Amino acid sequence: MGNELLNGRTANTNAQWLCGEIYSLGGLVKRVMTVPDDLQEIETTLRETLLRRPRWVITTGGLGPTYDDMTLDGVAAALGRGLSEDKAAREMILKRLAGYKVQGRAQPLDFTPERAKMARIPVGSKPLSNSAGTAPGVLVELEGTYVACLPGVPSEMKAIFQEHLAPMMAGNRLKTVTVDTEVRGVPEAALAPTLAALAKKYPGIYVKSHPKGFEGVSRVLVQLTGRGEEGVEDVESARKELAVVLEGMNAAYEMRTIQDNQ
Amino acid sequence: MGNELLNGRTANTNAQWLCGEIYSLGGLVKRVMTVPDDLQEIETTLRETLLRRPRWVITTGGLGPTYDDMTLDGVAAALGRGLSEDKAAREMILKRLAGYKVQGRAQPLDFTPERAKMARIPVGSKPLSNSAGTAPGVLVELEGTYVACLPGVPSEMKAIFQEHLAPMMAGNRLKTVTVDTEVRGVPEAALAPTLAALAKKYPGIYVKSHPKGFEGVSRVLVQLTGRGEEGVEDVESARKELAVVLEGMNAAYEMRTIQDNQ
Repeated sequence: MGNELLNGRTANTNAQWLCGEIYSLGGLVKRVMTVPDDLQEIETTLRETLLRRPRWVITTGGLGPTYDDMTLDGVAAALGRGLSEDKAAREMILKRLAGYKVQGRAQPLDFTPERAKMARIPVGSKPLSNSAGTAPGVLVELEGTYVACLPGVPSEMKAIFQEHLAPMMAGNRLKTVTVDTEVRGVPEAALAPTLAALAKKYPGIYVKSHPKGFEGVSRVLVQLTGRGEEGVEDVESARKELAVVLEGMNAAYEMRTIQDNQ
Repeated sequence: MGNELLNGRTANTNAQWLCGEIYSLGGLVKRVMTVPDDLQEIETTLRETLLRRPRWVITTGGLGPTYDDMTLDGVAAALGRGLSEDKAAREMILKRLAGYKVQGRAQPLDFTPERAKMARIPVGSKPLSNSAGTAPGVLVELEGTYVACLPGVPSEMKAIFQEHLAPMMAGNRLKTVTVDTEVRGVPEAALAPTLAALAKKYPGIYVKSHPKGFEGVSRVLVQLTGRGEEGVEDVESARKELAVVLEGMNAAYEMRTIQDNQ
């Protein structure tokens, strides 16, 4: 969340990174939402999201010391809980502050009210240690849903995700294979019946075409993705069938196979 | 919308571009949502969004000829309407097809069922001509809300936005100024009281700090943004006050002013 994402200044690279990690762990993100630094918006969005009863809700941003860092207030409000200073969170922050070798013009690293703010987390939640920065992450377990709050600084978000959340999600890490086929000289609409047939024949795989512009010759990127043993086999079958069709069209194409978790 | 955004393969650059354009036109995006290529998800998300009664809802992606292009089905379902072939949309598509100078190995550009699909739009909506590709955009006017559907190909999305939507949004294009201040050697928590005071004193401006990592010396980017005459003046006042505080801290800092629509 954050205004800088909604005025176009900043790309939401955190969302893309998390989607990729969760996908490679065998999960699938169902929805990404970007909301402003506004308490009411954060609370409403989280309430709406929890109604969908997802396994995980992950927030990024808004855990820092400044007045516009209000994620935990919004989460607490959505859960109908208060915030209170957590002893373990306080220890984590003090440990980080003690470890900083401050150079140059830095101010003293006291446990100021702004830093104490980072130790105030929703009642019943637990802090997640942050090996890359000061603000701890937060994890709340509800009935069937985990709500995890991560910092917005990418290095800190990634560190906490990898250390604390990925191990909870793992165990179903699946082999994934994607075949990217770049087709030249065949409009997307002419490929559509073939792709629809492949998607129907192999319902477990993900078939997607991306038109890549039309400058005299149309270019289309076709992606076939499968996960797990069967998905990987189906992608290989679909790849061969697609190649036969493209040969029949006298199309120019290149195929590239990308494997994850093999 | 699109699965490729939710598995981390593709960055949502369309959302970032639209947020920036709308911001520079004097608007503010309140929420960005990314959903999968799934009819039910598209319908539900649009229904939820319309309940918030925004001035504009803009979708990107899913207007093409293939089976996974289902945005208009989802929009029609959310509005409780059907789809029907629109004569003007059909004309637009035929005109594009006739204009293509097909080279190389291209297939004939007939008005196939896949292309006819792109002319089927929600009853009561109007097509928006696409100067950069085949699929027309779509505009529906509800009570107080415009729903616009744009293609996912960035060049086409941008062309339709600039040609059709930007003129409808303009008229309140505001001067905008942003002052970026990079501060070195002062932790974000030490800046927090000053930023909170500035945000309180100048409620019309947007004050945000971004920690930029801590490697011996902390770096924080502070952004002050204002829009309109008053906002631009307030940013200048806040900039001077921030400079005084930073001088008092003996902080190393650099300020950069970015102006739009001056």
